Amino acid sequence: MSEVGQRMVRLVREMQDEITTALTAIDPVGFREDSWERDGGGGGWSRVLQDGEVFEKAGVNVSEVYGELSPQAAASMGGGAHIDDLSFFATGVSLVLHPHNPMAPTVHANYRYFERGDGSEPGSWWFGGGSDLTPAYLFDEDARHFHDTHKAALDRHDVALYPRFKTTCDEYFYLPHRKEARGVGGIFYDNFTELGQEGGLALARTCGSALLDAYLPIIERRKDAPFTDANRTWQQIRRGRYVEFNLVWDRGTAFGLRTDGRTESILMSLPLTARWEYGHEPEPGTEEARVLEVLRHPQDWATS
Amino acid sequence: MSEVGQRMVRLVREMQDEITTALTAIDPVGFREDSWERDGGGGGWSRVLQDGEVFEKAGVNVSEVYGELSPQAAASMGGGAHIDDLSFFATGVSLVLHPHNPMAPTVHANYRYFERGDGSEPGSWWFGGGSDLTPAYLFDEDARHFHDTHKAALDRHDVALYPRFKTTCDEYFYLPHRKEARGVGGIFYDNFTELGQEGGLALARTCGSALLDAYLPIIERRKDAPFTDANRTWQQIRRGRYVEFNLVWDRGTAFGLRTDGRTESILMSLPLTARWEYGHEPEPGTEEARVLEVLRHPQDWATS
Repeated sequence: MSEVGQRMVRLVREMQDEITTALTAIDPVGFREDSWERDGGGGGWSRVLQDGEVFEKAGVNVSEVYGELSPQAAASMGGGAHIDDLSFFATGVSLVLHPHNPMAPTVHANYRYFERGDGSEPGSWWFGGGSDLTPAYLFDEDARHFHDTHKAALDRHDVALYPRFKTTCDEYFYLPHRKEARGVGGIFYDNFTELGQEGGLALARTCGSALLDAYLPIIERRKDAPFTDANRTWQQIRRGRYVEFNLVWDRGTAFGLRTDGRTESILMSLPLTARWEYGHEPEPGTEEARVLEVLRHPQDWATS
Repeated sequence: MSEVGQRMVRLVREMQDEITTALTAIDPVGFREDSWERDGGGGGWSRVLQDGEVFEKAGVNVSEVYGELSPQAAASMGGGAHIDDLSFFATGVSLVLHPHNPMAPTVHANYRYFERGDGSEPGSWWFGGGSDLTPAYLFDEDARHFHDTHKAALDRHDVALYPRFKTTCDEYFYLPHRKEARGVGGIFYDNFTELGQEGGLALARTCGSALLDAYLPIIERRKDAPFTDANRTWQQIRRGRYVEFNLVWDRGTAFGLRTDGRTESILMSLPLTARWEYGHEPEPGTEEARVLEVLRHPQDWATS
């Protein structure tokens, strides 16, 4: 593994510590850590908080895996197709937070690094990452704050990044069979090399730090909001859509489940509970109809 | 469409009537029917019972679709690859019943017919179908009765069929990422031509009729069984596994969602509610551990 790879491992573990510490201050139930080993090389540390005071389910996972790619897996990679060496190294942090309160949005983030061989050849390494927000009820100020915070983080590196990463996020977190976005988006990037290894590492650090700034004010103001049974039912239906995206369309989930990844860590992203009502469609003019309208027509949220 | 195709349409609509009538006698909430049309030709009739007295969600759908296959779709078909004519016709009945009571198993069944062109060339048509049982709590007598009833139905056509269809069912309804079967199986067949068109139609009729004989005695004896909150939680976790199979592994669901099928009819198969707990593993020696053990090691259930 390259020296950048080693620094990325330290970075994602630091991010895991920083995030779980900050979340434990909000939800004292706290995280339980499991470590696991991968046949073939490496493993991970999964931290999960379940049935908390604020969060229904929250997971912050780190993995650090290495070994040999199959020729088929190597050929299907987004980069490095010209590399003969089938050895690989990959590390990343992945989090999903599902709050109890239907007014508080779910958030997902993931920052990762992949390299082939010793990571010294051009095109043999890349970064990926992003973060996106999935509300059941839409508060415009939350969506604006989430996007503004991530835009400010990216602007420190290159002002051209946010518009691209925002669009990529809208395109990726989309359910074609529902003709809906999963949520109000955020940022997403993959096969990213253009800032170099140092720049990619710095970008992951900045974006990872932005996550708490982006999400903590939102969860603080929504976690104790009043809600009705009907609000909870709608949240559960939206949780069902989250499950549909992750199990049907998410490339990382599909890859993990089909290559004998650690199922419990991969499916940590699923909510504690979800609901599927046949043919459910909210009444026109309701808050539920408004959020659906926005999910069907992604908007610009950044205010600057 | 061939004359056999027309008779299969009548058969699946009769099966839909027979089944929904029988189920309404058990659950007076009854079914609501939606009809839908398919861009490109055909449509369907979806009958769904939701939040009933016995069933949390029950769907009995019929579709009758026709049109032109894309060359890619035609090439990926299980049969008829040699047919130049891209026109097709398909019809079938599909049902999933999710009862409220954790002691009462979920049942799925599907009987379908597909043809290319006018269905006159050898290899241009085939039948598929089957039925399988998914208990959260295992009562051996239920699994035996379900298998015995289907075996008796198949034996009327050919005693060689049940062992093959039972094995195919175990192989198909399997979650590789959990190393578990979805349930205790039943029968499953696809690309089936060997009894001829008349024989295939007769087989669908016999198996379809067997469904009520197989399931009604089970739901009658389990629907009012006493249960605890812990039983309900375990049922919800097993419902989560059902969702995982259908969204990740079921070929029909994947095909439908990726080819712009009617989403609400396809996802009628999902339970009303489901649950995902991180790293849940039942205590050794419990009823929950026993059912998992059976799902990990499929058994022979037929008693004759």
